[in-house]
Amino acid sequence: MAFVAQDPDFETRVRRSFSEQRAMATIGASLGNVGPGEVDILLPFRDDLTQQDGFVHAGVIAAVADSACGYAAYSLMALGGRVLSIEFKVNLLAPAVGERFEARGRVLRAGKTVTVCRADVAAISGRAEKLVAAMTGTMMCV
Amino acid sequence: MAFVAQDPDFETRVRRSFSEQRAMATIGASLGNVGPGEVDILLPFRDDLTQQDGFVHAGVIAAVADSACGYAAYSLMALGGRVLSIEFKVNLLAPAVGERFEARGRVLRAGKTVTVCRADVAAISGRAEKLVAAMTGTMMCV
Amino acid sequence: MAFVAQDPDFETRVRRSFSEQRAMATIGASLGNVGPGEVDILLPFRDDLTQQDGFVHAGVIAAVADSACGYAAYSLMALGGRVLSIEFKVNLLAPAVGERFEARGRVLRAGKTVTVCRADVAAISGRAEKLVAAMTGTMMCV
Amino acid sequence: MAFVAQDPDFETRVRRSFSEQRAMATIGASLGNVGPGEVDILLPFRDDLTQQDGFVHAGVIAAVADSACGYAAYSLMALGGRVLSIEFKVNLLAPAVGERFEARGRVLRAGKTVTVCRADVAAISGRAEKLVAAMTGTMMCV
Repeated sequence: MAFVAQDPDFETRVRRSFSEQRAMATIGASLGNVGPGEVDILLPFRDDLTQQDGFVHAGVIAAVADSACGYAAYSLMALGGRVLSIEFKVNLLAPAVGERFEARGRVLRAGKTVTVCRADVAAISGRAEKLVAAMTGTMMCV
Repeated sequence: MAFVAQDPDFETRVRRSFSEQRAMATIGASLGNVGPGEVDILLPFRDDLTQQDGFVHAGVIAAVADSACGYAAYSLMALGGRVLSIEFKVNLLAPAVGERFEARGRVLRAGKTVTVCRADVAAISGRAEKLVAAMTGTMMCV
Repeated sequence: MAFVAQDPDFETRVRRSFSEQRAMATIGASLGNVGPGEVDILLPFRDDLTQQDGFVHAGVIAAVADSACGYAAYSLMALGGRVLSIEFKVNLLAPAVGERFEARGRVLRAGKTVTVCRADVAAISGRAEKLVAAMTGTMMCV
Repeated sequence: MAFVAQDPDFETRVRRSFSEQRAMATIGASLGNVGPGEVDILLPFRDDLTQQDGFVHAGVIAAVADSACGYAAYSLMALGGRVLSIEFKVNLLAPAVGERFEARGRVLRAGKTVTVCRADVAAISGRAEKLVAAMTGTMMCV
């Protein structure tokens, strides 16, 4: 699906808001591509983000996927809106191991109040890529 | 529901595994009560865990809820098993603001391979408590 | 949680709307208790609702749980509102076999636009009761 | 993703099992394309499947999406296995109105015990098509 942003300056707005997400800085995540209804977030592997088996914690994977969904939704919102996650579900498809991760948030349906997004999270090692998680979430404009 | 642990030493096992979750240490979470099929995780508010509005990031809330579910499931498993989250869904009911948070994981159905858990996350400020998130997740014994 | 209905006539309104859900009549479901934020739906077992193993189809279980959630939310809404499900997730905990089923919808958080509900579905045979499904869903007032 | 079926006779097996889902016959659903990891289910609109606003009930939409996921998973299973849904989540993106609906189940990750699927449900009227629901579900081989 191709979406058109209402606010031509959406990328600046997304990047500014992302820079205010202190949780993203804490886990070392950064913003990748930002398009209308499409936002990617990058997360390098770090030992201090792991669970008991040495995989990145499912909650950390959920955090980058949720931010990717939230900003994909936010990119389509009118100026002045704020975005909040109201729910998300994530299926963990493979252990989150790799050099880095990329969460790709995509808007599935954009509404005035409620926007539904999907995010796939890939683990990347060299040129190999593996899907490790799939999220669907509902974002609300307030 | 009241569950009986197969392994009388389940609490030691849960506490040891939790101490190996480096992501929990990174966000400052600690283990509270541990019972058969019931595990609580505590998370003090920290500015570096917030999203753009100053609320704790939904992914961080999901991380503690997921660990609470995972260890509630793990507490009922036989010795030698490992637990992995295969999916979870979280509804975010109110902004995650407060002095601290408590994620209360409870087993809903314990199976040999698959265990289903719920976790409620409360925000606590002084003596006031508010439900901020509700998770249902599926945990797998491998 | 105890809720207070805004519309004192909520029960009449819920019962009238339920009677317009032709899908509920088709599967033989009927309304049980209706309270503020609490609605039960009853479904007798029928062979023509089963999947390939003779259990009631997960979609049919989801249908009664979703209606129970929707009407629990609707019971708290102001006169003139309409309710729509925006999402739900159901965990299927045990095969849906029994003489009849009861879906118990309960509001978890009531909001002006968005209301979050849970529904447990029990299978009942004689005096025995077993939890077969657990739903969490988001309902929207339009 | 392209999958290879373990059982060359998977289509016969899927079609036979589907014909045993009495709930599908009750709502008038039929099987469309069946490929390895890909199953479509068709549902003509019927007045007796609607909710209070005249849209097809979300539970009925979930039923066809769940069967599409289940059979997509089943198509990749070895002979002798049985498939059960352990959970699914559906986002309802638009009112389910149209001449007919098509639920397209696709395997996202095939495992020995657990298979994760997505299903999109489109409403079709003449040549126009609209996405009305998106499901992600976990199917178990028993």
